[in-house]
Amino acid sequence: MFLGRVVGTVWSTVKWPELSGLKLLLVRPYDLSELRTGVLTPSQEAVVCADLLDAGIGDDVIIAYGHAARVAAWEASLDHPPPAAPPIPIDAAVVAVVDRYHISESEEPPPPVAPR
Amino acid sequence: MFLGRVVGTVWSTVKWPELSGLKLLLVRPYDLSELRTGVLTPSQEAVVCADLLDAGIGDDVIIAYGHAARVAAWEASLDHPPPAAPPIPIDAAVVAVVDRYHISESEEPPPPVAPR
Amino acid sequence: MFLGRVVGTVWSTVKWPELSGLKLLLVRPYDLSELRTGVLTPSQEAVVCADLLDAGIGDDVIIAYGHAARVAAWEASLDHPPPAAPPIPIDAAVVAVVDRYHISESEEPPPPVAPR
Amino acid sequence: MFLGRVVGTVWSTVKWPELSGLKLLLVRPYDLSELRTGVLTPSQEAVVCADLLDAGIGDDVIIAYGHAARVAAWEASLDHPPPAAPPIPIDAAVVAVVDRYHISESEEPPPPVAPR
Amino acid sequence: MFLGRVVGTVWSTVKWPELSGLKLLLVRPYDLSELRTGVLTPSQEAVVCADLLDAGIGDDVIIAYGHAARVAAWEASLDHPPPAAPPIPIDAAVVAVVDRYHISESEEPPPPVAPR
Repeated sequence: MFLGRVVGTVWSTVKWPELSGLKLLLVRPYDLSELRTGVLTPSQEAVVCADLLDAGIGDDVIIAYGHAARVAAWEASLDHPPPAAPPIPIDAAVVAVVDRYHISESEEPPPPVAPR
Repeated sequence: MFLGRVVGTVWSTVKWPELSGLKLLLVRPYDLSELRTGVLTPSQEAVVCADLLDAGIGDDVIIAYGHAARVAAWEASLDHPPPAAPPIPIDAAVVAVVDRYHISESEEPPPPVAPR
Repeated sequence: MFLGRVVGTVWSTVKWPELSGLKLLLVRPYDLSELRTGVLTPSQEAVVCADLLDAGIGDDVIIAYGHAARVAAWEASLDHPPPAAPPIPIDAAVVAVVDRYHISESEEPPPPVAPR
Repeated sequence: MFLGRVVGTVWSTVKWPELSGLKLLLVRPYDLSELRTGVLTPSQEAVVCADLLDAGIGDDVIIAYGHAARVAAWEASLDHPPPAAPPIPIDAAVVAVVDRYHISESEEPPPPVAPR
Repeated sequence: MFLGRVVGTVWSTVKWPELSGLKLLLVRPYDLSELRTGVLTPSQEAVVCADLLDAGIGDDVIIAYGHAARVAAWEASLDHPPPAAPPIPIDAAVVAVVDRYHISESEEPPPPVAPR
């Protein structure tokens, strides 16, 4: 999963009934130094994600890929547990809206377990 | 999922009956600054995707990977719901044709939730 | 999926009966400018792929990852439809041999749908 | 899987019952030279991972993606074996806490099997 | 799959019974020019892989990800065929030990199928 900010919305013509009621967001991932300093640097990445948590532009969210995204999309829209392989043609979804986070401030933590 | 532009088509000799009727497109992903400015910069990436939505060269599309792509390919070509693991040898497909999108214009949104 | 060229072959000692009869190729992905110009630039990537389509060195092929690769490997070697999760320890396979492709020549296509 | 260090924690508002009791960590992957020298260099990557092994900030951990992460999350929280596709909306988890590692010290090992 | 060299071993405290008897190796992927020239250049990547083929430091191996890795881990340790989704919390494994390989020597093979 990754932590990112919602920066946009996409509208589209689709054929799949599962996608037609689904909100699609553009999310920009954070890198580690941005999380440490709170200062954003230019980023080129834009991930399209399904959203069923009512996230809006400017929100910080956690995105999961693959089966996890389809479980999230299924459970939010339906009451019963998802099937083993939810037949939803998405591969990324918002799985959490971030309230706050803590991160160690040192840029250079002590060395890892020494090689032997 | 990612947002990209259809830039080409591929013809091939294949052995799999599932692929033989499937249109294969070359799609070039957009990066975030291209979506913000509308100005394209040179890109090196080219993803081969199955298409069942009649997308053409110059169209903007959303591409999904993995199980999502196989669900999309199955549902577009057949009437009944897909099996748990659609036996189609593709890993990427067009899942939506983009009508329009909205994106926040600021290059530097306010800082994320402050570290504590 | 990606479009690439077969550049080598690998021989190995393996324990899995499913792999022992499987040809393993080294494939070098193309980037978009190579497809546009027909001129290759130095590349560092080498993907190991199972091949059941009799591709040879110099052939242009389409490679799929994950479940798609296992479906391809299963269907080419056996007559009956694959199980939901083919028990073959590979994650990449040749799914098509490329005959020809068409790609838009402009390096800078018109801007995408304008942001609003 | 990759080897990384726990550098932070994330708190979030979520709708999925499976995630509500799950601790989410920020993990920074190591690169090979850091493992060889024990000296960390600035890194930009931050992966959000579920943790059920009580890892804390400063711990070195192994992270797995996809089905492996959901198996780990399921087994740690429940007694019985996991279903074929655990319905948990996560795609990364701590699967081991690292005690120590050994790595070959040479930066330039002897050449690989010679091409023929 | 990718071709790489075993460069290290990891020991860890784990809770999963499936992992406790599993050897974990650090593998460094080769790039294409290294395979062509036999001369290694500095690399930063280190992948943690399960090994059930008795590979050792200095061996050249093929690594598979995801379901393929779990099939390999299951089949090597147990006699019966694997279940549809082997409940093993790993996502990468050694699936073959490389004996030798052949690679085309030219850095610039003839151009691909010409665009039309």
